[in-house]
Amino acid sequence: MEAKSHGEGGRVALVREALELIAASPRGVLCTLLPEGGEPYGSLVDILPLEGGDAVLFLSGLAEHRKNLDADPRGSLLLGPAIGSPDALTQPRVTIVGSAEHVEDRAEFRDLYLAAHPASAAFIDFPDFAFYRLRADRVRYIAGFGRMGWIPRDSLLAQDPE
Amino acid sequence: MEAKSHGEGGRVALVREALELIAASPRGVLCTLLPEGGEPYGSLVDILPLEGGDAVLFLSGLAEHRKNLDADPRGSLLLGPAIGSPDALTQPRVTIVGSAEHVEDRAEFRDLYLAAHPASAAFIDFPDFAFYRLRADRVRYIAGFGRMGWIPRDSLLAQDPE
Repeated sequence: MEAKSHGEGGRVALVREALELIAASPRGVLCTLLPEGGEPYGSLVDILPLEGGDAVLFLSGLAEHRKNLDADPRGSLLLGPAIGSPDALTQPRVTIVGSAEHVEDRAEFRDLYLAAHPASAAFIDFPDFAFYRLRADRVRYIAGFGRMGWIPRDSLLAQDPE
Repeated sequence: MEAKSHGEGGRVALVREALELIAASPRGVLCTLLPEGGEPYGSLVDILPLEGGDAVLFLSGLAEHRKNLDADPRGSLLLGPAIGSPDALTQPRVTIVGSAEHVEDRAEFRDLYLAAHPASAAFIDFPDFAFYRLRADRVRYIAGFGRMGWIPRDSLLAQDPE
């Protein structure tokens, strides 16, 4: 891992903090790729965090980001408690980078997602919605000024095995 | 413009709302492209909104997003007052999609940026920082449930000429 931290203990602490931030995040900003021009596209999403830095999304078939992922599965999720707040740039945040896979068996995450997002009861069984799992290939964690790093998947799984 | 609105008056109102939201946004989420894997990458940035949907960024030479833009200028900015808040998905938000250009003459935006972000006084004259202008090729505006649309650059400029 490339990380501005202090030795092995510092790196382990950084990875654990990143995983805690992910686990505590109910929503974030999804980045996908627009099929026409290939530009990266940011949109708001609710999420269900899983172990190891992966996250589940529940997406409408009408939404731009769903169409984008169906055309190209590469994506990222920016998470943090202070996104959008005036002191956002001094607060910790994390970006999960990877690719999103359509979840064939929607029963796998239905009840967990509903528990995390009770308002989704209004559409949790709509047939045009689907679950996607963003697989964390690597994570960029910014703890604060001068304390940050890229964390590869094997380091995430070592600290938070599935 | 593809917009779920009502006639020409509805479309004009949508464009004006999108421009007002951009003009009122001091920060947002920048999406850029990672050079290695081509994944879209989300990160937090302060911004200086300009007329017509464009926005100015002031980026450190050490930052990932700056390196990404130098390798590929395509990017987007997600803006909205409620990003990250519990009711974010019911609040208006806008995504500027386009490409970012390095601003050669930093005097062009220095004083305006400093006025918008007084804390930048600590680094506004650092030589490794640089201004970038994200040109809005098109904008995705989500006003609320069922009221949204893509707005092309010519419609943005027609309502908010530079």
